[in-house]
Amino acid sequence: MEEERFVKEVIPKSEDLSRWYTYIIKRAELVDYAPMKGMMVIRPYGYAVWERIQALLDRRLKETGHTNAYFPLFIPESFLKKEAEHVEGFAPEVAWVTHGGKEELEERLAVRPTSESIICAMYSKWVRSWRDLPVLINQWANVVRWEKETRPFLRTTEFLWQEGHTAHATYEEAEEEALRIISIYKEFIESELAIHVIDGRKSDAERFAGAIKTYTVEALMPDGKALQAGTSHNLGQNFSRAFDIKFESKEQKIEYVWQTSWGVSTRLIGAIIMAHGDDSGLVFPPSVAPIQVVIIPIPKGDWTKDILPFAEEIFSSLKSVGIRTLLDKRDEYTPGWKFSEWEMRGVPLRIEIGPRDFERKEITISRRDTRERIVTPVRGAVESIKELLSEIQRSLFEKSKKFTEENTFKTNDYKEFKRIMEEKRGFIISPWCGSPQCERQIKEETTATIRVIPLNSSPEKSLSCIVCGSSPSTFVYFAKAY
Amino acid sequence: MEEERFVKEVIPKSEDLSRWYTYIIKRAELVDYAPMKGMMVIRPYGYAVWERIQALLDRRLKETGHTNAYFPLFIPESFLKKEAEHVEGFAPEVAWVTHGGKEELEERLAVRPTSESIICAMYSKWVRSWRDLPVLINQWANVVRWEKETRPFLRTTEFLWQEGHTAHATYEEAEEEALRIISIYKEFIESELAIHVIDGRKSDAERFAGAIKTYTVEALMPDGKALQAGTSHNLGQNFSRAFDIKFESKEQKIEYVWQTSWGVSTRLIGAIIMAHGDDSGLVFPPSVAPIQVVIIPIPKGDWTKDILPFAEEIFSSLKSVGIRTLLDKRDEYTPGWKFSEWEMRGVPLRIEIGPRDFERKEITISRRDTRERIVTPVRGAVESIKELLSEIQRSLFEKSKKFTEENTFKTNDYKEFKRIMEEKRGFIISPWCGSPQCERQIKEETTATIRVIPLNSSPEKSLSCIVCGSSPSTFVYFAKAY
Repeated sequence: MEEERFVKEVIPKSEDLSRWYTYIIKRAELVDYAPMKGMMVIRPYGYAVWERIQALLDRRLKETGHTNAYFPLFIPESFLKKEAEHVEGFAPEVAWVTHGGKEELEERLAVRPTSESIICAMYSKWVRSWRDLPVLINQWANVVRWEKETRPFLRTTEFLWQEGHTAHATYEEAEEEALRIISIYKEFIESELAIHVIDGRKSDAERFAGAIKTYTVEALMPDGKALQAGTSHNLGQNFSRAFDIKFESKEQKIEYVWQTSWGVSTRLIGAIIMAHGDDSGLVFPPSVAPIQVVIIPIPKGDWTKDILPFAEEIFSSLKSVGIRTLLDKRDEYTPGWKFSEWEMRGVPLRIEIGPRDFERKEITISRRDTRERIVTPVRGAVESIKELLSEIQRSLFEKSKKFTEENTFKTNDYKEFKRIMEEKRGFIISPWCGSPQCERQIKEETTATIRVIPLNSSPEKSLSCIVCGSSPSTFVYFAKAY
Repeated sequence: MEEERFVKEVIPKSEDLSRWYTYIIKRAELVDYAPMKGMMVIRPYGYAVWERIQALLDRRLKETGHTNAYFPLFIPESFLKKEAEHVEGFAPEVAWVTHGGKEELEERLAVRPTSESIICAMYSKWVRSWRDLPVLINQWANVVRWEKETRPFLRTTEFLWQEGHTAHATYEEAEEEALRIISIYKEFIESELAIHVIDGRKSDAERFAGAIKTYTVEALMPDGKALQAGTSHNLGQNFSRAFDIKFESKEQKIEYVWQTSWGVSTRLIGAIIMAHGDDSGLVFPPSVAPIQVVIIPIPKGDWTKDILPFAEEIFSSLKSVGIRTLLDKRDEYTPGWKFSEWEMRGVPLRIEIGPRDFERKEITISRRDTRERIVTPVRGAVESIKELLSEIQRSLFEKSKKFTEENTFKTNDYKEFKRIMEEKRGFIISPWCGSPQCERQIKEETTATIRVIPLNSSPEKSLSCIVCGSSPSTFVYFAKAY
């Protein structure tokens, strides 16, 4: 009901990000609420973004030697229980299948919240020798976590993701893989989604259940809260010991494998929406925009004879070079309605074609991000549009980077820390002694958590913990988080 | 345990298709058995075939105006019950979620066996006016059906598929869509999977639960049994009435929409394996082969200095034109082992490169399907290989078509019908009066069912039913089926 009401009124993003988000995702038909609590329907316009994400990330994963596979949706309860920390972390959020047809199952089955346990059970059958390593498998799948508070894309009972699961002969190789993936995620999110991220390691309190190290990329949202955009875990031998994944080394010794797992999800769509949108609606980076260019012919005079064929010609020339283009020639809507509709839907470039454009063999291009209008001759227009799309992609990233920089603060003073967290929020870089107590105290007093311990950082004698004052300490990133 | 035994011995396909199938799918690492009854793991080599199927079919669906979306995995029991025939058909095979975390759910949730009911619930919110029609949505998803007897790819508790769900303003448009899809399936399966199929309509007994008409494409497998390869349903207004999907027509009348649904699944991988394999293992049609060309350098003399760079050059030139190529330079295996390994795995073309090839700037190509060996100069080799791949694709389809033709019999005599069904099997074209009684009698006495009522066929006075002798009757295709 609440949602229904939102759809009627436009909420400026700058005033209330949360309400704007709830409004725009539905209004732009990215998503709808399913009748079951916490579940979403990803509508075609939203799913097209996911298809772009899949294509662009999948290419990177395949280029680095990974292959895709598919593992079962259901995991027997006994499997989930094999790795103690893992089951403790996930059991409270599991959906359980207890009946198949009319029969009650002997053992109930978890709908996968993540697939380490079923995948490790298979790896223990597949891995025998060093020749079988490394195993570099990824899967694109749906997972279910019984969440109490949900928001479309950001946190839902069911979501789509990719989960990579690798096995290696040595600790070093696993560590290298975990780091390689986090660097792929960073490069992918920054260059394709145009969102600046901070990479680093998680503290033990924020570590994945069952991992020895968790790496993360975190993006700062316009409300100053951090969004965990992707994680990569070095699982050590925790799972290989629990699931008995052993191999004979080149030296003919029987050893447990070293593993990693890593994933990004449909949450990334939420990040794109929040990072780039404005008071008029969505703003898609061209790389992931379902439609990159919309052409709107202006119906004036005998327009089906001159303007429309002209528009169709431009449409074809853009299509033929792979630019995702839509020609909106519906006659039940006015050009004005179409302008604001496609603006709200975040299409990076709009081309208007009126009688004057037709006569002069020109087109008028409008940038969604800057609202700049460019008149350009049809001859060479394809090249201009390609360049504009690259320029928008770059410019959105620069904006995102600048926003993060302007909202990243550094302080050694806990009072100032609290004040910033209350007023502006953002990332705060402060020294931390490494103790879970100090971390917990900050969380309790400010709700901020350690988002990232920068890579290659190490405790310095000259630094005193912002809470307890002890040395050595390390500069880490704090923020409130989604 | 049974499976483990199979892996040790090679079973010729010509002797026992069923045991060959069970053996080869595991030996070639297409699939493995999950620890849960009836569930499979699709390994990278098998999943790569699915990725090809997805890409090739998705392109066709998009070209005909369909878009992808994603609907929830879980369906409340009350939704499933809304369409009476539908729930009756699917309830016995549903996996039920009864608990979320520690809590018992108020209403249990079906893990989708198919998504009509949840999708229709959404369409009733989305469709208001003729302007919203047609809705042409597809989803790629996993579904679960609690099957008693399972076989990897052919019938499994969980499988992957695409399911299209469309809504239209008129009966005619829905009928046209249902037929358009079945013709897309036929063209896709024949040209990309190189499997000849018979298209047509299902009898009422074989209709989808909730449809008014079901269209199908059926392929004849080497054991003379038919495999249903894809179905397309005209749902009429059964679901729109149950889920209240109404729209205002151009004439401002409130009407129920007309719907279709249609799908193909990972079962197609089973069809490819059975249709094309031989006594030495798999034979993949180039269009869907995970690897189209394998290059095996022969390690003789100072091979890393001459043969290997030569092999790498060829590898790069094939890769650069998009041919899926593998250079197998592992030195822990002999060339002989590699030959039979890749033969067993069904790679369409093998290139051997020995010292003589290197000296003469030639390559030796072997066709997997005919075992023909072709020596060709390196200059122009890329073109030769492209042509060979097309030739294999064509030739496999011709072989499949010929097999179907040679195993399709026509008879008006029930005794002969029974004899053929017992001895050779295959398709039998016989006249049928249209009564469910005669259909049932044939099924009970021969286990054969009506696979297809040819499109555009109608009862003819001159034809007498093969069972009861009454007229008019229609020629229909019978077969035993998977």
